[in-house]
Amino acid sequence: MAGGHGTRFWPVSRKNRPKQLLNIIGDQTMLQMTVDRLRKIRFIEDIYIVVGSDLAKTIAKEVEGVPKKNIIVEPSGKNTAPSIGLVASHLLARDPDAVMGVFPADHLIVGHRLFSGALSSALKLVNSDHLLVTLGIVPSSPHTGYGYIQFDKKRSLEDGKAFGVKTFAEKPTASAAKRFLESGDFLWNSGMFVWKASVYLEAMRDHMAVHHEIMEEIGQTVGTGKYQSTLEAKWDSLSPESVDYGILEKASNIYVVKSEFTWSDMGSWNSYFELLPKKGDGNVVKGDGLVIDGGGNLIYSLGKLTTVMGLSDIAVINTDDATLIVPRDRVEEIKTIVSMVKQKGRDDLL
Amino acid sequence: MAGGHGTRFWPVSRKNRPKQLLNIIGDQTMLQMTVDRLRKIRFIEDIYIVVGSDLAKTIAKEVEGVPKKNIIVEPSGKNTAPSIGLVASHLLARDPDAVMGVFPADHLIVGHRLFSGALSSALKLVNSDHLLVTLGIVPSSPHTGYGYIQFDKKRSLEDGKAFGVKTFAEKPTASAAKRFLESGDFLWNSGMFVWKASVYLEAMRDHMAVHHEIMEEIGQTVGTGKYQSTLEAKWDSLSPESVDYGILEKASNIYVVKSEFTWSDMGSWNSYFELLPKKGDGNVVKGDGLVIDGGGNLIYSLGKLTTVMGLSDIAVINTDDATLIVPRDRVEEIKTIVSMVKQKGRDDLL
Repeated sequence: MAGGHGTRFWPVSRKNRPKQLLNIIGDQTMLQMTVDRLRKIRFIEDIYIVVGSDLAKTIAKEVEGVPKKNIIVEPSGKNTAPSIGLVASHLLARDPDAVMGVFPADHLIVGHRLFSGALSSALKLVNSDHLLVTLGIVPSSPHTGYGYIQFDKKRSLEDGKAFGVKTFAEKPTASAAKRFLESGDFLWNSGMFVWKASVYLEAMRDHMAVHHEIMEEIGQTVGTGKYQSTLEAKWDSLSPESVDYGILEKASNIYVVKSEFTWSDMGSWNSYFELLPKKGDGNVVKGDGLVIDGGGNLIYSLGKLTTVMGLSDIAVINTDDATLIVPRDRVEEIKTIVSMVKQKGRDDLL
Repeated sequence: MAGGHGTRFWPVSRKNRPKQLLNIIGDQTMLQMTVDRLRKIRFIEDIYIVVGSDLAKTIAKEVEGVPKKNIIVEPSGKNTAPSIGLVASHLLARDPDAVMGVFPADHLIVGHRLFSGALSSALKLVNSDHLLVTLGIVPSSPHTGYGYIQFDKKRSLEDGKAFGVKTFAEKPTASAAKRFLESGDFLWNSGMFVWKASVYLEAMRDHMAVHHEIMEEIGQTVGTGKYQSTLEAKWDSLSPESVDYGILEKASNIYVVKSEFTWSDMGSWNSYFELLPKKGDGNVVKGDGLVIDGGGNLIYSLGKLTTVMGLSDIAVINTDDATLIVPRDRVEEIKTIVSMVKQKGRDDLL
């Protein structure tokens, strides 16, 4: 899933350069890292990318080797449930037993062996049973920025690598997050899934009947000359819906694979701050930065020097045409800033 | 006086673009504004500029109309007392009765009529008597960044426009500054002076005998072929000395003209902040800036957008290759930052 136009990494991210196309970690974009991670496990011909029409060309250039026909273009953004349904329809036309893994293109994963192991467990589950499987990350901190999955210790499969899902919990308060962490039966909801394409579409039929009907109409034209016109005619009538809310929270055949790899949804500049190595004074400097008498700062400054004196716990994101300065505990409010920049008529900076 | 290489306006000011060559106020450089202010009062042929050899060419380009021979080049910086002495020697060679006004090229003055009036009073004094006259500014606030002059209310001249000087006071503490302001007999020491060239050199003879001797040797060669070689041979042996400490604090024939014009020595980014109009939230924005939920900030950002959210009373100076972020009450410490930038080997940013 490579759509999305988040503003959370503004001013580095822009409308035409969203998070999945940034190489703020390492020298590859988040999308390239995601593709590389998967091509170690499957042939590149088996990698499908779903993306909005506005970004399709840009994305295609970024992923050398992925067949052009595997780039599934949505006429408009309808959130994750329809996106996954559309790809499932394509896969089903190719192979009625097709198994699909669903991965956001803008998440960070460290530790290939553990990632690959979690996927193997998930594959065994979905091949042997009609299950919807999600990857849940063993939490390393009482993070309040993630949704959580509570699993049922009694319903264990695959030698304790997977469990039945008891409940999905929204982003918790700090005290609830602490309780979740201590309980030992909560995992971070990673937004990565494994299931048979057919099982997903069945779940859609059960829990999102209207969506399913439209998806069926589109699905029947995959591979025919009517596909594009049917897609364009039908797609807009879909109401936006997330797979979490539309299906997972309602379905009963959901299992979670307890996953130990290091994972971040890269939800904000703070995710970035948490991931990068700190200097002795607790500052993170990417590029050319100088901090005097201050700690806990994030300085992102490529191609120019940013000097900060006497300030702590702020984020400074310094690009050629726009600079953002904000306390780190308010980076979630970048949205507000971006909407004010828009109000100022500065579309060139969006 | 157009020498000097202060770092107080870094990163806008640089080694080759010191404060007097910045156009941060209006569209002229501080130097050009100083020259324009004086040419309204005197012929431009009467304006002399003293400057170090490193900046001489740059300065000459900035002041169209000032005769080249009036640009007096110091082989090296020796503070104000020798600078003024050198110019006095040139003027004396031209006219034994020459009167000189001394003006730093990097001060801001608003209110030409009052400035011109103060100068007239000073000229009357020095023409009628052997006096050293300084311009003292009626303080508008208990500023702790300026030196003060206490005048003697009983020794008044020119209908109460000028007074004998009782004492020079260094930069005061906050409480002393408040006392000074309330007393009504303290003025800001502006560093602007008026006197006959001959009277200045006599004062130098009385209070800086060694300097005077060297200055005499140089002065005797002004207008001859031996000038340049004598200057270069003798100048380096002068010890650096300010006119305040070397002469004014020791001389007894000093009067101060009580001056009402708006004046700032532009000693730091805070001077700049104080001068510029505030927006409703108390922020000063020069260029393209956006402040959300914060007040008392100074944003200097030309050709790029600087957005600040949730921070108050900071200065952000954003240039193409270097950005400075510092609480406004610590802008006086820019020196420290500049020396660390030097330590990092970034001479390109100095």
